[in-house]
Amino acid sequence: MRKIAESTVRRLSLYLRFLEDFEEQGIDTVSSDALATRGHTTSAQVRKDLSFFGSFGKRGLGYSVPELASRIRDILGLGRAYRVAVIGAGNLGAALVHFSGFDRHGFHVVSLYDSDPKKIGTERNGLAVRDQKDLEADMAEELADIAIIVTPASVAQELVDRLVGAGVKAFLNFAPVQLKVPDDVVVKTVSLALELEALSYGLRNR
Amino acid sequence: MRKIAESTVRRLSLYLRFLEDFEEQGIDTVSSDALATRGHTTSAQVRKDLSFFGSFGKRGLGYSVPELASRIRDILGLGRAYRVAVIGAGNLGAALVHFSGFDRHGFHVVSLYDSDPKKIGTERNGLAVRDQKDLEADMAEELADIAIIVTPASVAQELVDRLVGAGVKAFLNFAPVQLKVPDDVVVKTVSLALELEALSYGLRNR
Repeated sequence: MRKIAESTVRRLSLYLRFLEDFEEQGIDTVSSDALATRGHTTSAQVRKDLSFFGSFGKRGLGYSVPELASRIRDILGLGRAYRVAVIGAGNLGAALVHFSGFDRHGFHVVSLYDSDPKKIGTERNGLAVRDQKDLEADMAEELADIAIIVTPASVAQELVDRLVGAGVKAFLNFAPVQLKVPDDVVVKTVSLALELEALSYGLRNR
Repeated sequence: MRKIAESTVRRLSLYLRFLEDFEEQGIDTVSSDALATRGHTTSAQVRKDLSFFGSFGKRGLGYSVPELASRIRDILGLGRAYRVAVIGAGNLGAALVHFSGFDRHGFHVVSLYDSDPKKIGTERNGLAVRDQKDLEADMAEELADIAIIVTPASVAQELVDRLVGAGVKAFLNFAPVQLKVPDDVVVKTVSLALELEALSYGLRNR
């Protein structure tokens, strides 16, 4: 399968959200129009996005909701569960341990780390805080698929280097820093300050 | 000034992060090459981004760090402080009250709301949880510039409608739902599930 643009991957994720809603409501088929309306896009765009993966749907009948949902899950690599380690047991790290959207989509937070002796050994949202010193040993025993970085910017790169060395191949980064990783490692960065600045730009230039 | 593309706004935010680092280190001038290296882009792109705002820098000397930082802050509307209301006092909402990146950039969380009687009146990270019923009355007294939505998806749109009615013009949305707002209102959505799915796609297709 050829590489899909990041913007397409994002729209597929969105379509999947809508399809899951439809499934919950017991809706069996959906038109590209309905997906387009929900996604604030055009039905031509929906058909183009879905055409990447061969032929879907029947003209005039629309798409089968469970079939389409299952194909998109497959494309996105969601046919399996992912083990997630959260690095940084501050407020945000603790919140992410129990973020409701994760478990539902197969992302299971299995460990939480910090370097603060006052936090190590205590529980945050039902998960014991482990010692960051043990990262390599723990990962050798049971490797995390994804690490979420919620540490101060100053230590983020060093921790990512250690995790990459231990075999972790995917990172969700909340630290305000551009991480450097090898080519075979995937990073997504969530910058809340960046989002707020996009809002302040929007407010100023309405 | 003409409208700038969202991708350019994001790069300007990034350049500003780097310039602030340079300021802290006492560095006075910076080349487009240095900004490009930090931002994983090209110096041609940097020069193009900055040329939107008239002529900057001197050939061979580079840009003045404080001057460039100040111009970008101005463009992004960061010359002022923003009052932020957090709607939803769950784990993530409470974490955002004290998120270190916000205050530093002029975004001050001034209020926190919930509908749960057990939470109302208690404190989360030093801020009293207010009753969601009082949103309109509170906003009439002192309007928030930005509301951060950290509620369940099922109530997000209704709350946003109320806040828009009360005069709020900008939203940062964490609820897994596409919000509908009038044209003069700005919304940015942070979907953590979407980010993780982009990672799982990346893991599957490395």
